[in-house]
This record gives sequence, C-alpha cells and structure tokens, in this order.
Amino acid sequence: MTRRFPLEADVEFFHLRFDGEPTAARFELVEDLARPDGGLYGGTGIGASIAAMEAATGRAVLWVTTQFVAQVRVGSVVELATDVLATGRAVSQVLVRGTHEGRLLFVSVGSTAEPRAGGLDGQFLVRPEVSPVESSVPMTMTMGPVPEGPSHFRGNVEYRVAEVVRPGGDGPDMALWARLTRERPSTAAGIAFVADMVPPAVARAAGVMGGGPSLDNSLRFGPVDDGLTWVLLDLRGQMAHGGHGHGSVAVWSPDGRLLATGGQTSNMTLFRGPDPRFHP
Amino acid sequence: MTRRFPLEADVEFFHLRFDGEPTAARFELVEDLARPDGGLYGGTGIGASIAAMEAATGRAVLWVTTQFVAQVRVGSVVELATDVLATGRAVSQVLVRGTHEGRLLFVSVGSTAEPRAGGLDGQFLVRPEVSPVESSVPMTMTMGPVPEGPSHFRGNVEYRVAEVVRPGGDGPDMALWARLTRERPSTAAGIAFVADMVPPAVARAAGVMGGGPSLDNSLRFGPVDDGLTWVLLDLRGQMAHGGHGHGSVAVWSPDGRLLATGGQTSNMTLFRGPDPRFHP
Repeated sequence: MTRRFPLEADVEFFHLRFDGEPTAARFELVEDLARPDGGLYGGTGIGASIAAMEAATGRAVLWVTTQFVAQVRVGSVVELATDVLATGRAVSQVLVRGTHEGRLLFVSVGSTAEPRAGGLDGQFLVRPEVSPVESSVPMTMTMGPVPEGPSHFRGNVEYRVAEVVRPGGDGPDMALWARLTRERPSTAAGIAFVADMVPPAVARAAGVMGGGPSLDNSLRFGPVDDGLTWVLLDLRGQMAHGGHGHGSVAVWSPDGRLLATGGQTSNMTLFRGPDPRFHP
Repeated sequence: MTRRFPLEADVEFFHLRFDGEPTAARFELVEDLARPDGGLYGGTGIGASIAAMEAATGRAVLWVTTQFVAQVRVGSVVELATDVLATGRAVSQVLVRGTHEGRLLFVSVGSTAEPRAGGLDGQFLVRPEVSPVESSVPMTMTMGPVPEGPSHFRGNVEYRVAEVVRPGGDGPDMALWARLTRERPSTAAGIAFVADMVPPAVARAAGVMGGGPSLDNSLRFGPVDDGLTWVLLDLRGQMAHGGHGHGSVAVWSPDGRLLATGGQTSNMTLFRGPDPRFHP
C-alpha cells in the first residue's frame, strides 16, 4: 500500500497549510478543533502533529507522544515546525513544535516508519466483547442534551456507548464506538482525535464522574487501512495519585484488528453529576 | 514526604555531575550503564532524564517519554540540558536533550508534579498472581551463563523469573522481579532502568525469542516510596507490524502497590535460541 503524505483527509480535517516545505505548516484553531471552553483540544494537538510528522518524512506514524505546555484561544493560528532528527532505512525520528506567535503550545516526539519485509507481525491483546455499533446508544442520549453555545470538537465526532458483555475485572472501564462525522475516514491522525478520552475513564475506574485536561497523549499504531470509519475505544483507568491520573486506550477496528494502543496522564477534575463540558 | 531532588541515590547511580545550575548535568557512559555492545542502554537514557527533570524542578517525576535518536560509545560524556517549559502550582512540564559533543542522542519530554491535597487517589489495575521473590529463579539460570566480555548494564540489575500462577489470556507475557544490585533503592529513575524489558515480552507474546533496540520508552509513575528494592515487572506484548513492536509494562511493589505503567516501541530482532546479549 503506497500512500502520499500528508493524507488529503488530514490536511482538510485540520485545515493544514504547508508553507512550501513539508516541515513547516500552520492551521487556524477553528471551533470544531477546540474544547468547549475555546482552548486547544488535545486531540487536535496530537492529530495535527501526526499529520506534520507524516508530511515531513513521507512515512506513516508508528508512535507519538504529545506534551501539552500552554493554551491558545479559538481563532489563533498554530504554527507547526517539524524537525526530522534521524532517518533510517525503515524508521524516522521526528519532533514537532506547535507555537502561537513564538509561544510554545505543545511538543510532539515520535517515529514514522515503513514495515520491514519479513518483520515480526501479530496482535497479542484480547479485544473486549462489546455491543456492535448498530445496537450501541449515542453518547448524547446517556449524558443528556448538549448545551447551547459555540460549536467545539464534539461537532467532529460521533460517539456511541458500547456495552461490555462481561464488565469488571480485566475489562475496560469505558468502551466507546467513535467515528469522525461527515463520513470522513479514521486515519491515524483521525484516530488520535477521537481517542482523547482517557481522563473520563480514569474517573470511571474510581467510581466517580470526571475528566480533566491532559498533560500528554501517547499513541502507538499498527497498520491503519484506508476505508476505516468506526473504531472501538477500550478505555481503562490505571491509577490516580494526588489528583494526577494515568490511563490507557486500545483502539480496535469493527472486525477485530488492533489499530493503536496508548496512554495519557491528566489533572483529574471530579463532578457530582455528568458535566457534558468535560465528560462529553 | 519532602525529598530533595536530585535524589542522592540517582546522582550516584548515573554518575551525574551538575554544572553549578540544576538544568545542566553530564555523566560518563561507563560500562555498567551501557548495552552489551557498548552503546547507550535505553534504561540509562530514560533514568538519567528523570533525575535531570527532578533536579531542574524540585518535583518528583509524573510521566516521561524518552525518544532515542542516535548512539554513543562507552567512555563518552553525555550532556543533559533541561528546559522547564512550564511551571504550574502542582505540575512542571519539562524537556531534556541528551547530547554528545553537540550531537543529539535522545530527547525526553515529561512532567514532574506534587500531589494535590484532596485530589483523586486509587489504583485500578489487577496485579497478576506470581511466585514471590524468594521462590523465583534468577534469570541467568533460565538463560544459561552470561558470556565472558566487558561488563554492561546487567551488572547493575538482578532479575528473577516470576512464575505466573494463571498464565495466558489477560495475564503477562513475561513477569520479572527486578532490583538494582548493591542494595541500591528503586527510585523512579531506578525503576526506569530495570523496566526497559518490553521488547523481549513482545517477542514472547508472538511465541518467539527476541528483543531489539527501543525507539522510545514511556513511563507513568505513582508514588515511589524511599525504602523500595524489589519490584515486579508485568510485561506484555501488544502488537507487531513489519518488524515494529509495541508493548507495555506495569511495575508493582511486593505488597501490591502499582508504582508505574508504561510502553515501548522497538525494532524487533528475532533469534532461533536464547541470546543473552539481547534477551538477558
């Protein structure tokens, strides 16, 4: 499978503009890429970083960690400067800095790669048994109506609550079917956009409602094929200490292929009841 | 618990020297911090980065991702330059660059933090049932004698093979008890040093023997108390694609406290039989 990077779908989705060279890009933080409070949505930071890494190297993302440093408001232009730190036969090491008017917003480190012929292949995790997309309930129905106000990233994502067949024990704390709206494909960058849901799963694991801003977002990818739309997010809380929460995500295709694994650390904020601003 | 950073044990273990200011440090890559082939051991890169982050901020590490860019040989001096990107009430965002004579070897991003009073606390993973340290077999006994040659990082670590009580399914692919030798404590940086064992677990998950150099190493920490020595590594392969492998680790105290979680991506190299150089 030969693909040209950046993927057209990602350029469109993140409103990316490249300044002549593939290592310099920018995008305007429009409402649909922002949080409900008008700040940069974490999934936008990691997703745009993935597109930037792929554009700079001509290879598909293998893993990425995005560290969130500072905030910026809707309407601002975010500049992406990509350093290709090393280029090997199959792997590139890349660093992306996201800035606004010279101020650092986020740093992403990661690799892009090509599969090596005859290299090890396989998937070794057990996919949780959940209700199929068709019989899963839209998340807005379980969380009450979305409040009036400016649009935000949720306008770009459709979530359905997947029912776990054997909950508890080694199963997910939260399982969601997710896809981008308007029939846009789930590219690796698109998966990063919809998978930024670990903090609510940490709260769920603790038996409370909550969420909170991520300090980072880390994802590791398997092959992501072109025609993908719905993906299953298997979200788990790992631990929390003094309000700092760690959790993980595994991303599955409807036919059981493992697409990505990852983790996040966040500042946990708890609520007495569901708050659609933070626990969408 | 108030501690002074950098921890004395880490300064000693990594041979760290600070150049007057806490954001600039260096260490000589001695044999016991190197791989068997004389290159920089990944656990040294992430461990020294943790000590550098803690030194620069006066706070304990919360999460860290180290990206490995280039190699360096035993006897070289590695310079650590730490940027504190942001400092909040409870969290600092930090970036460390490891260089040799101006050449970039690794980049580490991460947070250091203090617990917030009244913040969420808890651990939500199930610890695997394994044989206790006392009845677990030293790893050298299962892998044959260590070959003659220069000393390397294994001189700093003692591993015992923990027998998993109910193997398979949702259990670990490889479980190891680990501690630093010479009665040195398992600090967060020390845990990072001994936990760099995910690649062999990816091979084990695939039913083969192997390992391989890491592209990155990512860890998220809970509280690590002062008196810790033995830790349990719960190592799991997640997937491999075209020779690129992803896996995870959870680190437990002997009395069942979750100390850390993490992941690594590596270039998988397979062997027909055990090779103590790569599968120690």
